[in-house]
Amino acid sequence: MFDVPALLAELSLEEKASLLDGSDFWHTQPVARLGVPGVMVTDGPHGLRKQTADGDHLGLARSVPATCFPPAVGLAASWDPALLERVGAALGRECRAERVAVLLGPGVNMKRTPLCGRNFEYFSEDPLLAGELAAAFVRGVQGQGVGTSLKHFAANNQETERMSVSAEVDERTLREIYLPAFERVVTGARPWTVMCSYNRLNGTYVSEHRWLLTGVLREEWGFEGLVVSDWGAVNRRDAGLRAGLDLEMPSSGGAGTRALLAAVREGRLTEAEVDEAAGRVLGLVNRALPALEPGQTFDVAAHHELAREAATSGVVLLRNDDEILPLDPESGGRIAVVGEFARSPRYQGAGSSQVNPTRLDDALGSLRAALGGAREVTFAAGYVVESEATDPALVAEAVEHARAADVVVLFLGLPPSYESEGYDRPHMELPAQQVELLRAVAEANANVVVVLSNGAAVLLDPWQGAAKAVLECWLLGQAGGAAVADLLLGRANPSGRLAETIPVRYEDNPTVGAFPGEHGTVRYAEGLLIGCRWYDAHRMEVAYPFGHGLSYTTFDYADLTVDMLADDAAPRVTVGLTVTNTGRRAGRETVQLYVGDPVSTVYRPERELRAFAQVALEPGASERVTLELGPRAFAFWHTPLGRWVVEGGAFELRVGASSRDIRLSAVIDLTGEEIARPLTPESEVSRWLDHPEAGPRLRKALAGSPFETMLADAQHGELFRAIPLVRLSRFPGFPVSEETLATWST
Amino acid sequence: MFDVPALLAELSLEEKASLLDGSDFWHTQPVARLGVPGVMVTDGPHGLRKQTADGDHLGLARSVPATCFPPAVGLAASWDPALLERVGAALGRECRAERVAVLLGPGVNMKRTPLCGRNFEYFSEDPLLAGELAAAFVRGVQGQGVGTSLKHFAANNQETERMSVSAEVDERTLREIYLPAFERVVTGARPWTVMCSYNRLNGTYVSEHRWLLTGVLREEWGFEGLVVSDWGAVNRRDAGLRAGLDLEMPSSGGAGTRALLAAVREGRLTEAEVDEAAGRVLGLVNRALPALEPGQTFDVAAHHELAREAATSGVVLLRNDDEILPLDPESGGRIAVVGEFARSPRYQGAGSSQVNPTRLDDALGSLRAALGGAREVTFAAGYVVESEATDPALVAEAVEHARAADVVVLFLGLPPSYESEGYDRPHMELPAQQVELLRAVAEANANVVVVLSNGAAVLLDPWQGAAKAVLECWLLGQAGGAAVADLLLGRANPSGRLAETIPVRYEDNPTVGAFPGEHGTVRYAEGLLIGCRWYDAHRMEVAYPFGHGLSYTTFDYADLTVDMLADDAAPRVTVGLTVTNTGRRAGRETVQLYVGDPVSTVYRPERELRAFAQVALEPGASERVTLELGPRAFAFWHTPLGRWVVEGGAFELRVGASSRDIRLSAVIDLTGEEIARPLTPESEVSRWLDHPEAGPRLRKALAGSPFETMLADAQHGELFRAIPLVRLSRFPGFPVSEETLATWST
Repeated sequence: MFDVPALLAELSLEEKASLLDGSDFWHTQPVARLGVPGVMVTDGPHGLRKQTADGDHLGLARSVPATCFPPAVGLAASWDPALLERVGAALGRECRAERVAVLLGPGVNMKRTPLCGRNFEYFSEDPLLAGELAAAFVRGVQGQGVGTSLKHFAANNQETERMSVSAEVDERTLREIYLPAFERVVTGARPWTVMCSYNRLNGTYVSEHRWLLTGVLREEWGFEGLVVSDWGAVNRRDAGLRAGLDLEMPSSGGAGTRALLAAVREGRLTEAEVDEAAGRVLGLVNRALPALEPGQTFDVAAHHELAREAATSGVVLLRNDDEILPLDPESGGRIAVVGEFARSPRYQGAGSSQVNPTRLDDALGSLRAALGGAREVTFAAGYVVESEATDPALVAEAVEHARAADVVVLFLGLPPSYESEGYDRPHMELPAQQVELLRAVAEANANVVVVLSNGAAVLLDPWQGAAKAVLECWLLGQAGGAAVADLLLGRANPSGRLAETIPVRYEDNPTVGAFPGEHGTVRYAEGLLIGCRWYDAHRMEVAYPFGHGLSYTTFDYADLTVDMLADDAAPRVTVGLTVTNTGRRAGRETVQLYVGDPVSTVYRPERELRAFAQVALEPGASERVTLELGPRAFAFWHTPLGRWVVEGGAFELRVGASSRDIRLSAVIDLTGEEIARPLTPESEVSRWLDHPEAGPRLRKALAGSPFETMLADAQHGELFRAIPLVRLSRFPGFPVSEETLATWST
Repeated sequence: MFDVPALLAELSLEEKASLLDGSDFWHTQPVARLGVPGVMVTDGPHGLRKQTADGDHLGLARSVPATCFPPAVGLAASWDPALLERVGAALGRECRAERVAVLLGPGVNMKRTPLCGRNFEYFSEDPLLAGELAAAFVRGVQGQGVGTSLKHFAANNQETERMSVSAEVDERTLREIYLPAFERVVTGARPWTVMCSYNRLNGTYVSEHRWLLTGVLREEWGFEGLVVSDWGAVNRRDAGLRAGLDLEMPSSGGAGTRALLAAVREGRLTEAEVDEAAGRVLGLVNRALPALEPGQTFDVAAHHELAREAATSGVVLLRNDDEILPLDPESGGRIAVVGEFARSPRYQGAGSSQVNPTRLDDALGSLRAALGGAREVTFAAGYVVESEATDPALVAEAVEHARAADVVVLFLGLPPSYESEGYDRPHMELPAQQVELLRAVAEANANVVVVLSNGAAVLLDPWQGAAKAVLECWLLGQAGGAAVADLLLGRANPSGRLAETIPVRYEDNPTVGAFPGEHGTVRYAEGLLIGCRWYDAHRMEVAYPFGHGLSYTTFDYADLTVDMLADDAAPRVTVGLTVTNTGRRAGRETVQLYVGDPVSTVYRPERELRAFAQVALEPGASERVTLELGPRAFAFWHTPLGRWVVEGGAFELRVGASSRDIRLSAVIDLTGEEIARPLTPESEVSRWLDHPEAGPRLRKALAGSPFETMLADAQHGELFRAIPLVRLSRFPGFPVSEETLATWST
């Protein structure tokens, strides 16, 4: 541990500036003469990618074995913050064992388009869900004395031209959709570092965006940690520092330091600014050292077991016709497992998050092991993963297996090349050859269970009619195979929920025409209407709605209570209800609370997720669930005022098992706050007339003039009343002058 | 006729400035000492609203009788420029008879939202259609030596807060959607004046928007006429003049003149600027005087007959199950006419366009007159127009009539209070009581023909299943009643086409969440995807697509030919086809040509109307139709270059009877132009590698480095190739420095 201010005083400007650049790909700069070490940061975040060689930013150079937990897409589907906190803690232990100071994650960007190649690294289309889960993850990691890097801050919601594109987003949309997940993590879990993204925001590189990196992040949210560049995000190093970007990574080979020193020399930066950032780097080193003593280990088997639990929680049972699932381990019939993914699992995505797992379960092996011969399990590959063409021999073999079996478990999904950091998908379809395989298999056997592996939503409607059940497994990490076997056989009960809407068609999605942009900009045209907000606003059918997920049991919702704890400008409300397991198996239910504000001076999405809770229940058991709503659950961002406002009036509270499966609802009336709107000459005539003092004065002045008649006219009175009074005052014969109006204003 | 420069030289600055203000509501300022008269301008544009009293801007003070032609919504549905030119000429004659120098119209704003209260005054959701029709109208009026005022320039697409709201529109959307109709009229028909709108555009009042009023309008489009304010649109008079707003209307009582003089005194305006605008006012007076000799008249009966022809052409037969229409005048069965609108027609909208008609036909009387007793016609009012409540007695009476009749002709529509200048509609529904009436009547008699009167699209899906035919009559002007009778009885054959899409539900429309805006701004979120462009992009079903309209006969399309007249940066293409009347009645067909550019560097709407033509054919007759496509049919607005660009490649030509009833299609390959993209350090690695000179140089430099391996990697190569080379050059160990890259750039 160092005394940072004392250390700063001993360092030369050159040394301090050098601290603001990496020393290589993964380390901060040491100051050898004063015994300050560099510390290591490492990609992730669903596992460590600690490279042993020089490092290359990506997955080419080998990294040390580490537990590969489910990527964010899989973790998110659990809707289980407690689980994420435990996964985070395990990751923290692995960091300590590998002497890694900061795990570079989590990523809380919104899934604006289903095509974003990096959606598997992100949690949700919903900022509350993403923020809650990521905050728990950060708490878990940092509870081990190891840091996180909340990324990619901000508005980095596509890979196409990610290093240059300008996201054009209005402020209310930023505040209500693209920033809240970051805000929730920063204010609720205090990540040690925040990573700035590559892109530009409304024309300015994020790495130079002072409003974002300092105004919002530090001054509004109170962030006290370090801001690090995404690897290669620095554009002009001096402008970056001025904006609030402390640390450039990876090493710029001295270019960054030279630029900073030149800027100080030329008076464009002060030494105090360098000190502040250098102090943050030293603070980070300081903070990390205690946890990094050598010789620590972690329990590989226990972490694999946790990865299996997380994988199990992240599977969403989309449909289950005729209760075809779970498969009865005792029934004795033959199970045909079809699809290469059963044998060669797709368990994580490509790019900087790619982990070298300690073990790897495959579903086929896990299923056979779990059944122990109680049912015969045959296997046919069906397809070659990275081929676009159907292999007739593989299909014929699969059909033969299907015909000879009682049930077919068909593993489909996206090949690794379909989704990666660095590029976006061109479409939302499964490979055509897989769909062909499904149709062939389904013709041979009506009992088809589809198991999906994919890092972002794929279209189901073209083919799902051919399957009785669909188990959406996303990417599940190294223990996904075992988790799937558990779920198929009913050893575990599915409880995952959709963290992103699955639309019927790609063309239904909100970014059509506004993704991936053109001429270096992408206009966030849909504004607030991302994900389920869009489908609700346009009353569109979806394949499966946000929040959806079936169970092998059923739940009943009853006895809604609403308690108003505070009813002022910052309301607080508690919602209670009783959930009962009405089926025959133990299960876990996710209760979701959506809030709507049907009458407002601004456009508001019809319903927004504002709280959720989980309850695990034995058959027949009941539990009381309580959900808390604070002011933000009711507020909107008032752009002209530059702050959150709760507008008084009726609010709809809807409690459900998904965003479109609402079981209980209530309407409450909140006092909120009244926003004063001064009366000006530009105010409409109607507002003048309604004013207690100015109204009578105006009426008196108009009495007897043709304008009095106009305002009273049945057909055109409304037209006149909508005119700003100052405009009318210019009309020939109007009895009140512009000058008089100014004196009447409030 | 005056010598304008000589006159200007004789006028004092005060006199010249005074010319830039109206003298009252409807006249320009005279200069008595030099014998310069003021001239009159008058609202319209589908008829004259020349007020006899002092005038009040709106319809309260009585106006002289004038032919009320169909408002723009009705004229537009004709898709017939020749007809609009004849209507324009008739209006020009009425102007001369009334000594009106300028008719204040036409309005070519786009129907962005179906709720805009003034949609009845506008032509279409499509800029080509609106521009072609308005240009013909202007040619007609101005052919009589009388001026027009093209309005409301620009981006005034809603009534809510129309005097203050800022339309936030990106430039490409402005250029491709909101300006082209104005451009087409200005460049193709040279209107004498253009009227600036009330609203703000991207933050600046249009009345002070120099880019719009001078840069685009005069410098790009070559407009040489006068720019007049909408009545009351002036905010800061001096800023307005500087931006290009010549004439303030109505009179500001001297306020405007005083502001201008003060600005000249204080050096914020030059006398030359005043001279230029004053010269335009004098030029207008000069231009108008020859046509305004007293004592002219017009043929009231002939104009009524033309109004009837226009009304007939504007009716769209939406559906006609079992060929229930036309009604056979000879069959003898009883016709129950139901609905107050049959007796009290809704024939125009409220606000400044409201005309005092010379005559007024009602459908009931016209039908009875046309049948001359050949079939019995009963009448039941069914509802009170401006009441929201069902009147059970009226419904019972209507049902009784329906039960006793062979066929029911049910007149439904929007009450006058539903749509007006000055406010927008809150929804797209017919009054609930009218729908109830329809259901009751349809239960009593299955043969229901619905005749609609409405100024903008209403939802049909909630009720249209109860009707066998729907005749969409929009607002048809004073002769609409006779026109409807002609169409019902088959004396005329419907040929109108939808100039606006009718969606299934309000929530389908593109402005959901982005209309009417908040906090003084409305974001044109949907961008290019207005109207049919939206429904096509999202593959949405619609009630009836843009361009749809049935006939009592049928047409066949055949023998498509495509001739390339020029294939360069400004391509010209001629499309030919043969249309044959394959039915048993004479009829008129509207052939529509849509162009799509499936592969482009920018997002392009799937298909856009680029040409249309009409052909009138006797049964069995054929005619060759030729459609011309110029460069603009293929071009998009290239925002960074600030000009139109035709990008080479395949273009789809689709010829159809509506935007979704495509009969013939072809794909052509155009050379277009190649936009040079210089290679810069910021260019992606892939562009560097593809470059004929820089590529080999870069490969050589990378040879043997880990970066060579990365770029060749199957999984991550694409990621690396998408990185701007300058970013990669900063990475540790990269063999080419940023400085070297700069020297390699092209």
